[in-house]
Amino acid sequence: MHDTRGDRPGRPRGRLLVQKYGGSSLATAERIVSAAQRVAAARAQGHELVVVVSAMGDTTDELIQLARSVARQPDERELDHLLSTGEMVSATLLAMALADRGCPAVSLTAAQAGIRTTRVFTRARITGIQPERITRELDKGKVVVVTGFQGITEEMDVTTLGRGGSDTTAVALACALGAECCEIYTDVEGVYTADPRVEPAARPLDRISYEEMLELAQLGARVMHPRAVELGLLFGMPILVRSSFSDAPGTLITGGEEVEVRKHVRGVAHDMDVAKITLGGVPDRPGIAAAIFKPLADASINVDVIAQAASLEGITELSFTISRGDLPKALPMMKEVARQIGATALDTSDRLAKVSIVGTGMQSAPGYAARMFSALAQANINIDMISTSDIRITCVIDRERVEEAVRVLHRAFELDTD
Amino acid sequence: MHDTRGDRPGRPRGRLLVQKYGGSSLATAERIVSAAQRVAAARAQGHELVVVVSAMGDTTDELIQLARSVARQPDERELDHLLSTGEMVSATLLAMALADRGCPAVSLTAAQAGIRTTRVFTRARITGIQPERITRELDKGKVVVVTGFQGITEEMDVTTLGRGGSDTTAVALACALGAECCEIYTDVEGVYTADPRVEPAARPLDRISYEEMLELAQLGARVMHPRAVELGLLFGMPILVRSSFSDAPGTLITGGEEVEVRKHVRGVAHDMDVAKITLGGVPDRPGIAAAIFKPLADASINVDVIAQAASLEGITELSFTISRGDLPKALPMMKEVARQIGATALDTSDRLAKVSIVGTGMQSAPGYAARMFSALAQANINIDMISTSDIRITCVIDRERVEEAVRVLHRAFELDTD
Repeated sequence: MHDTRGDRPGRPRGRLLVQKYGGSSLATAERIVSAAQRVAAARAQGHELVVVVSAMGDTTDELIQLARSVARQPDERELDHLLSTGEMVSATLLAMALADRGCPAVSLTAAQAGIRTTRVFTRARITGIQPERITRELDKGKVVVVTGFQGITEEMDVTTLGRGGSDTTAVALACALGAECCEIYTDVEGVYTADPRVEPAARPLDRISYEEMLELAQLGARVMHPRAVELGLLFGMPILVRSSFSDAPGTLITGGEEVEVRKHVRGVAHDMDVAKITLGGVPDRPGIAAAIFKPLADASINVDVIAQAASLEGITELSFTISRGDLPKALPMMKEVARQIGATALDTSDRLAKVSIVGTGMQSAPGYAARMFSALAQANINIDMISTSDIRITCVIDRERVEEAVRVLHRAFELDTD
Repeated sequence: MHDTRGDRPGRPRGRLLVQKYGGSSLATAERIVSAAQRVAAARAQGHELVVVVSAMGDTTDELIQLARSVARQPDERELDHLLSTGEMVSATLLAMALADRGCPAVSLTAAQAGIRTTRVFTRARITGIQPERITRELDKGKVVVVTGFQGITEEMDVTTLGRGGSDTTAVALACALGAECCEIYTDVEGVYTADPRVEPAARPLDRISYEEMLELAQLGARVMHPRAVELGLLFGMPILVRSSFSDAPGTLITGGEEVEVRKHVRGVAHDMDVAKITLGGVPDRPGIAAAIFKPLADASINVDVIAQAASLEGITELSFTISRGDLPKALPMMKEVARQIGATALDTSDRLAKVSIVGTGMQSAPGYAARMFSALAQANINIDMISTSDIRITCVIDRERVEEAVRVLHRAFELDTD
């Protein structure tokens, strides 16, 4: 039993691939069979396989509708138990399809796969993985199909990880099992230089660094969930994003040193989900920013771009953006804050959007911001707010101009050519 | 903590009701809400409640269809995991509907509820119940909704108990928790004197003994699963069968001594699922019956009525009935047996049906068989085979005459009058 392959829990399994199939890749019986064929082909090439699945097609949304038809405010613990059935259905069907084609397979629920999480229903975090059952089934020569998006608390209650959680499950399992690579199968051919629905000249990238992908994911490129990318970065797990509908090579998300930087700017991202709150007539004294942002943080409202005008006679103006969905919750809080700190005006706008350029090269080469701003200016697109990081420059602009801005920047940074 | 209510695991909970809702009682969101209202009403009357649910409407059949669309022969372990999602959906929806109406509730899967079974997928048997989580939730004042029809193996794999398994789950939980009563909610108003679709004068019975119910259930009265009735008999658990669509009082299945025997014959049952196999020219010598029935038993084929003709010059004829679905499997076996024992003829018929009268009174009063046979004779209905027990007489007759036979016998034994 003591061989050198290292097939005991916690030891790397060099021939192991973790593949994740999203909802659109499993939306029908035909697509499940097609995914099974892809899995079987990888196994025939000598790989061990753990396959993480999302729920079929729109199942999750349909289950949420069903919950709302019996309860005005569905209990979150019950909702998580309900939603978890979606991945159980796709996991068992995929395992059946594999077994029926002579490829031994077993489906495991989050409880069976040992995926432990916090007890925060609807948006739990993975706290650890106890992979004994998975490794036992792999040792029997089986393909192990694991329900994505879900975990289990210490009390054996089922939790879900929030939208995009199946990506996180896949990368976490790849890291815990010491897999060779984590492959994310989706309905697009990889990570694009821009949203191809907006910029027809957008191209899939061969490679991208974790950091760049993280920025893109957070900026609204829906191809990968940011938490999954973070995990990949933390454990150095290569993540290959590719289409389940074609044989295109996809995009490899990997460590910065492996990424050949041919262009400084790698992609343009945009995000429509932007609401701005502006407090005017704010006394410019220490503690004001804390007074404004602490209640938002306490309510788990994420603040994105922040801009403060230059102080004039001890009075300033402060603007920040949040997700549009958080506006109804944030507004009464800000009214109260405005009263407390003596601000004289409170304005909101949800007619804005963000456009960003991302690339690890930017930190070592100047002039990118200027090039971005002048490209937008030439197109007569006004910039409302600006935010930057080492590898990203973001402009908040008019929502109606954002698609044009994507195309302008894609061209300005020559992203349409290889 | 040490009060006298006896609310620790394994001790009787005198105020506890176990209610089971079948698929038709939970087929739509409206019906789930209506079931929630009934549960909440029982709780408002001071009862503790454990509610066992089947899958909504035709969910189980739909999931089986889905499985067949991806695999010619779905793996049974995977099929059980797939089917178990049906009850998870109805359990979580019912718990949400309850909580949303101010009635604290929690749904538990078979794993969470501690329902242990054998590792025989698609027809597992309950081996024990570890009710700690259930009693903990009851002690918190919650209604506990448990997924019926399913259990869990020692290895944490999900099993199903076969058709009608939710009844078994309900009675098993009622016994394990020391409930006051197990209430089975269904789409009929109780146990009838005959199938009301066949005999319009059929009436629901107030009470019936476990033994009588067991005979009726095995004879094709689909209202209760025989295994559930057996469990009730074994533990003396009163079972109330009633409609979830009306306030009719239903039928109480209870111990014989509590059943007031006003009529000796309590009901007429019929069953269309009958196939007959006849072996002719069989040498009448010891060991022949064993040679015929052992291979059937080994293949888990249930033999029902057996009839052997009087031996003539050392040659006899032997007939028996099985379920029609077992015929394709049994026939090649019997061809082989006929060859081995030197039988000269092998005939089959699937144009038959069974009609039975059932009642505990019969064992202590003679003449019932004669009355049954003469009633059928007067209606010119030929009897092909006969089988009896202490509380039952069954005749195998022509399939096309069986509904008429039900009506004839219902009238002959005056079952239409109270």
